[in-house]
Formats: sequence, C-alpha cells, structure tokens
Amino acid sequence: MAQTPRVQLLLTGDELMSGDTVDSNSALIARELSGLGLTPCRRVTLGDDRDALAREMAALADDADVLIVNGGLGPTIDDLTAAVLGEVAGHGLEEHPDALDHLEIWCKKRNLLLNDANRKQAMLPAGCTIIPNPVGSAVGFSLVVNNCLIMCTPGVPGELRAMLPVMVQRLREEFGITLQKDVLRLQTFGLGESTAQQLLVDNHPDWPPEVVLSFRAGAPQLEIKLSITRAEDRPRRDQCYEWLKALFGDHIIGEGDTRIAEAVIDQARDAGLTITCAESCTGGMIASMLTQIAGASDVFPGGFVTYSNALKESILGVPAETLKSEGAVSEATVKAMVRGALDASGADLAVAVSGIAGPGGGSNDKPVGTVWLAWGDRDAVETVCLCWPVERVLFQTMVAAAGLDVLRRKLAGIQNQSRYFDQRRLR
Amino acid sequence: MAQTPRVQLLLTGDELMSGDTVDSNSALIARELSGLGLTPCRRVTLGDDRDALAREMAALADDADVLIVNGGLGPTIDDLTAAVLGEVAGHGLEEHPDALDHLEIWCKKRNLLLNDANRKQAMLPAGCTIIPNPVGSAVGFSLVVNNCLIMCTPGVPGELRAMLPVMVQRLREEFGITLQKDVLRLQTFGLGESTAQQLLVDNHPDWPPEVVLSFRAGAPQLEIKLSITRAEDRPRRDQCYEWLKALFGDHIIGEGDTRIAEAVIDQARDAGLTITCAESCTGGMIASMLTQIAGASDVFPGGFVTYSNALKESILGVPAETLKSEGAVSEATVKAMVRGALDASGADLAVAVSGIAGPGGGSNDKPVGTVWLAWGDRDAVETVCLCWPVERVLFQTMVAAAGLDVLRRKLAGIQNQSRYFDQRRLR
Repeated sequence: MAQTPRVQLLLTGDELMSGDTVDSNSALIARELSGLGLTPCRRVTLGDDRDALAREMAALADDADVLIVNGGLGPTIDDLTAAVLGEVAGHGLEEHPDALDHLEIWCKKRNLLLNDANRKQAMLPAGCTIIPNPVGSAVGFSLVVNNCLIMCTPGVPGELRAMLPVMVQRLREEFGITLQKDVLRLQTFGLGESTAQQLLVDNHPDWPPEVVLSFRAGAPQLEIKLSITRAEDRPRRDQCYEWLKALFGDHIIGEGDTRIAEAVIDQARDAGLTITCAESCTGGMIASMLTQIAGASDVFPGGFVTYSNALKESILGVPAETLKSEGAVSEATVKAMVRGALDASGADLAVAVSGIAGPGGGSNDKPVGTVWLAWGDRDAVETVCLCWPVERVLFQTMVAAAGLDVLRRKLAGIQNQSRYFDQRRLR
Repeated sequence: MAQTPRVQLLLTGDELMSGDTVDSNSALIARELSGLGLTPCRRVTLGDDRDALAREMAALADDADVLIVNGGLGPTIDDLTAAVLGEVAGHGLEEHPDALDHLEIWCKKRNLLLNDANRKQAMLPAGCTIIPNPVGSAVGFSLVVNNCLIMCTPGVPGELRAMLPVMVQRLREEFGITLQKDVLRLQTFGLGESTAQQLLVDNHPDWPPEVVLSFRAGAPQLEIKLSITRAEDRPRRDQCYEWLKALFGDHIIGEGDTRIAEAVIDQARDAGLTITCAESCTGGMIASMLTQIAGASDVFPGGFVTYSNALKESILGVPAETLKSEGAVSEATVKAMVRGALDASGADLAVAVSGIAGPGGGSNDKPVGTVWLAWGDRDAVETVCLCWPVERVLFQTMVAAAGLDVLRRKLAGIQNQSRYFDQRRLR
C-alpha cells in the first residue's frame, strides 16, 4: 500500500481516566509520526476494563489502517492489552520465545528471579512480531488484524520513546512513505489569537487552503503554524510567510520553539551588549526567563529583585523622595530603577518593572494590573504604563515577557511596540 | 435520574493530535469529577475536523449520560464546537444575548473593540444554557441532546478550571448526587514516588483498602492523596494520615495545594522574620517562586540574581580570592553569598545557591548537576553539596525548591534534611 494510512491511537490505564496521570505519551507518538507526514486522526482513552477494551480494539481495527496501542503491557493483573488483543485477533496467547529470552536476560542483568508476574509478559498474541524494548522488561509487539497493523507499546514514557524509532521505520516500509511533512512554526509575542486571525482574514481572503494555518495560544507567546504536505506547495507557503511577516513582522520572535528570552540573548550576544533587569512586581521572573536559556551568562551578569522600597533605595539608588511623592509604581521610580540597575551591574541595557500584581494593593488611581515599564541604556530611557488585570502569576508572566520584548525591540532597532501595548496602555 | 451517570469526554483541537500540546485538561476534569464519585469511562480526542466531530458527538450523545466537550470555543475558524453541536442538536446557531453581553463587558474592560472574530463566540446552539467564564472571552454552554447532558468548555486550562465548580454543581443537581468524596491531599517535597510507596507497603501491610492511596508526582512536589467515599471511614483515614506523618512528617509541606514558597512565607510571617535569596544557577527562580505567592512582600524585601562572578563580588561582597581559589560553585562562595545577601537586604534569613545547570560548564570534579547550597542567619550558616543531573530547567526548579525547603525546615526548627539530600549528597 502506498497511500497515507489512517492512524488511530488507543491509550489504556485507570490512572489516565482518574486524572492521576497526565497523558504525555500521545504527544510523544504524534510528534514522532509527524516526521512521516502522519497525524493520528482520532484517539480513544480507556480504563483497565476488559470488555470495553475488546469492543474498542475491534472497532478501531475495523476503522483504521494503523492502530497504536499504548499501555497495559506490564506484569500486573490490570495489564490487559495482550490478552484482549489475542482474543480480538482470534488466536489466543502463546509464550513468545523472543520475549521470554528478553525477559531472562533482563532479569539476569538485574539479579532478579524470573517470577510468574514477569513471565506473563512473554505471553503474547499468537503470530505477533516483537518490537524490542531496550530499556524495560515488557517488549512491544505488532499484529495485523482485519487489515489493520496494530502496534502495542508500554505506557512507561522512557520505554515508549526508546521503541518509537523501530516503529517509525516499520511504518515507512509498510506504507512506502517517502513524504516529509513540512511545518513552519513561528513564535510571536504581543498578538492575541483573535486579532491575528481577524487580520489575516481581512487582508488575505485568498489564503491558499493547501497551506494549513493554525494557532496555539500559550502564555506569554502565540504560536502560528504553517503546514504543507507536498513539496510543490512550498512557494505558496513562502508567500504566506511573507504575508505574515508584512502583517506581524515585528511581533515575530523567531521560528521553531524560540522563546523571547532566547531572542533577546542572541541579539545581545550578536551586538556585543550585556543586559540586566530590576524587578519589583515580576519578582525574579524576568531573570528566571533569561537564565532558563543555556548560555544566558554570555550577556546577563545578573539582576535585582527589589521588592521593597528600602531595597529600591539601597541597591538601585531610587531617591526616597521619588518613592514618597510618586510611589513605587510610577514612571519616575522605574526610570530610576533602570539607571540604578545599569550602575550596579555595569550592563549596557536594562529593563525595570514596577506594578500591582494583586489580588490586593490596588487603588482607584492605580488598579490591580497597573504596571510601569522602563528600558534603555545610559543615553536614553523609554517608559510605558500598561494595565493587565489578570490573575497574579499570569500578570507576572505577561509583564516579564513584555519586559523582555521591549529589550528585543530595542536591540533589533524596531521603533514601535507590540499590539498588546496599544490595547493595554494606561498612560 | 438518581443513578450514577455514564460520563464521557470529547477533546478537540489539532494541537492535541499533532503532539504540539499535551492534554492536561482531561486530568483536570477527572480530578474535579472524582469529588462526585464519578470517573469518565471513555474519552475521545479529535482534531478540528468538522465531519469527524459531528459523527463523534452524535455517537457519544447516544452512548453517554454526560458528555463533556473541551476545546474549540475560541474565535478562530478552526474552533468548531458550537457549530457542530448546533448541527447535531438539529437547532442550528443563534446569537446568545448573555454570551454577547459577556463579550461586550469583557472587551470593554480591556479597551478592545468587539470584532467579528470575537463576536462569533456568542453564536451558540439554540436553546443552550450558558456556563459562565469568569476569566476569558468564550463562555461555555450546555445542552441536552438525545437524553445526554452535553457541556462544552474552552480549551484554555485556566478558563476550564474557573468553570468547573459550576459544572460540578449542575451535575450534582441533575443526577441527585449526594456522595461527597472526601479527599485529603498532602503536598510533600524531598520524597520520590517509589520510595514513598515502598515505605508505606513495608511499614503498613495492613493499610485499609477503603482508604485509597494515590500519588501524583509533579516537579518539584509529590502529592499524596487519601480518598474515602463513606463518612464512617474517616477515623480510619485519620489513622492513615497519622502513619503518613510518622513516616514522612518533616517532608509534608501542607494540605491542599500548598506550595513550598507559601509555607516558607507563612512561617516567616508567623515568626516575624524576613528572608532573602542570593541566586546563581537558579537565576531568579527562588525569588520568582516566593513572589508568585500573594503577600510575599510581608517577609521578602527582595533578592539578588548574581549570575556573574563580578556581581557576586560587587553586590554580595564575595571575596575575589574565594572565587579564584575555590570557584563560583563552592562552599566558601555560597557561604559568602549568604552573608552578603543578609547585609545587602537587611533580612533575617538567607539562602544562596551556586551550581552547574548545564548542558555546558561541567568538569570531572564538578559535573553538570552539581550545586552548593548555603542557608542561615547572622549567627550560623549551614551548607550542603548535591548533584541533580537532570535537564536545565528541571534542575533549576528542583534546586530552587530545595533552597526554599531548607528555609522551611530552619523556620520550623526541623533538624534533619529531606531524603533527596541523602540520595543526592556529593560532599
């Protein structure tokens, strides 16, 4: 068969239904399949219920070309996958010599006795093919049922991960897959999903359907994805990319998984400049975002979390009069914080933030969500006052990202600020 | 109906199928339902495919008493839930006045124009009931189709979380559920899941089966959960709680969702003490964990992110000779950082960390994952050297939590350190 197979997933385990475990295996499998241009079209998740599993497996084998089953291969009685599949295939179970060999070697290496519970893991559907497990006791196996290639894998993420390359190779061969899905992912900051969508619809009603556009809103970034599945659509995709750049150019942080902090660090490194931060309401999050990036030390000597007025004075030299007359959340204070951070760190560029993260501390004049930002170098400092009235940690996350974004824009020589600023500007 | 309803979930979103997003919403919903003694028996996940969604919704409505749909309520064209459900219900869509009111207020508060993309979120299946969304633009809604109560919720986790209490109440009323599952959740730090499990099995082979024990490993905390479903089992549950305290007492941070930073802040406030931190490898994460807690300013004047040796010297007064002879990752350096942070902040207690977060920077003597911690007051400073060779951000997270945990233990007068320290101690 040389056409795109219809892939479905079946996940099993009571812990997936109770909410005790978050299923990250599906994403792992899907990301691996995307290299083949395959996306699972449907996935079903069930508890350890024999009848429900048998019903579902039969229905899925009927409906799919490929069924990947994950979970239920362990040694305990609630591990039902092999037994149920043996039943569905109509051949029952038999002790598989390769699986038994694997178990014997695995136990011997660990000085364990091969007990009955472990030995159960060699009882597999008759006629199946082993998928080797280099890191665990339970092998995987595959079997064709009703023209559907069923591949069964263990639920332990590390074991699944170790087995995926063999599975991918098997799929390539079985379905003659040469295609490579081509996905361009762009990271943006400062755009809302609905704004981005509306602008694209308004400006490009002729968007080509073969360039699939999708969004993923994370805090603080919005990901825009352009996917094509045929190499001949690349020029069209590139055209769409140009449209995106024309519309949102200065909001684009980078391709792939680029985070704002990463972009800032790269740009500062390229410019031979160092950066610092003086944080009140973000309380260390700007520094933490920067230092989560490997190599931050190239451009970031450190930062200052001056939460109290006393530290704003003693560490950053914010004048006591300013704090008294203007308050900690004021333009004069954040400007002084920038100057103080530059002096105290010796860095070339600084950003400072002071605001009211809430839930307490707001007033009529300065409601919860109010924040002053200042950024600049020894020659010039710019400021803005925004209002971002959201939950405390989200506020800190968005403000920290905005603080990095103003540095990114300054380093890139971008004059204007993000759309978020227009929408949220207080003063 | 006063019998246990059969609950199924339908998750939608291309990002869930492509592997770009790990689905944590299902677990969130399941944990909330467990309070009603309900566990979803099946869940189906689909991409943004109109026909597949329509087929699945109809089949699920046929098979379940309750169907919770998550995702697809946003403003963009790939948000299909309302349109498909309108079709399945046979009534089509209409502009819902309450939803429109909500959108208008939501936009006004944020100084946004109500554009067409946003306005789409008020087009809901005719006859549905609104589920209010206190934190986002898209309301949820419920509708009975084919005797199945269908509840549609947005995919943004914070919005879903905010809407769940109303949904739970609705289910209680609809199905006459009086059962109160009584769940005691304990937050711990410094224990691995398998260690905790093994210690309980070894020490309490007579653990009563009616007190259901479960674990949820998060980074940095491990949650231990004791669940009962009958009020008469409470004394037995309390007995189990006592066993837990005897085994892991000093690892228990608190009940419910208590985070280590919260415990530290509460204890410092009670003791009338202030705290500070001097961070190298955690790069601001300790400060950020503290300031994510509302009220942190009561006890935390601020902290120091001294990433470079120059700032360790100039801000914290770490002697240049120490940095030269012992290195930045050394006992002498972190001790000097504690003293410097106490001096510079005027706080009563400080913690300092310096380590190698990787992936670069390791050596034979100090491999990646090595970290020195020091903590104390003006009278006494303690230190430990650990090795936590994990991925960079996980390393920072665990070390930041360990830094807070040593403060927590000191404030609580606990003499010994967590089990993690025994397992990871280098020097």
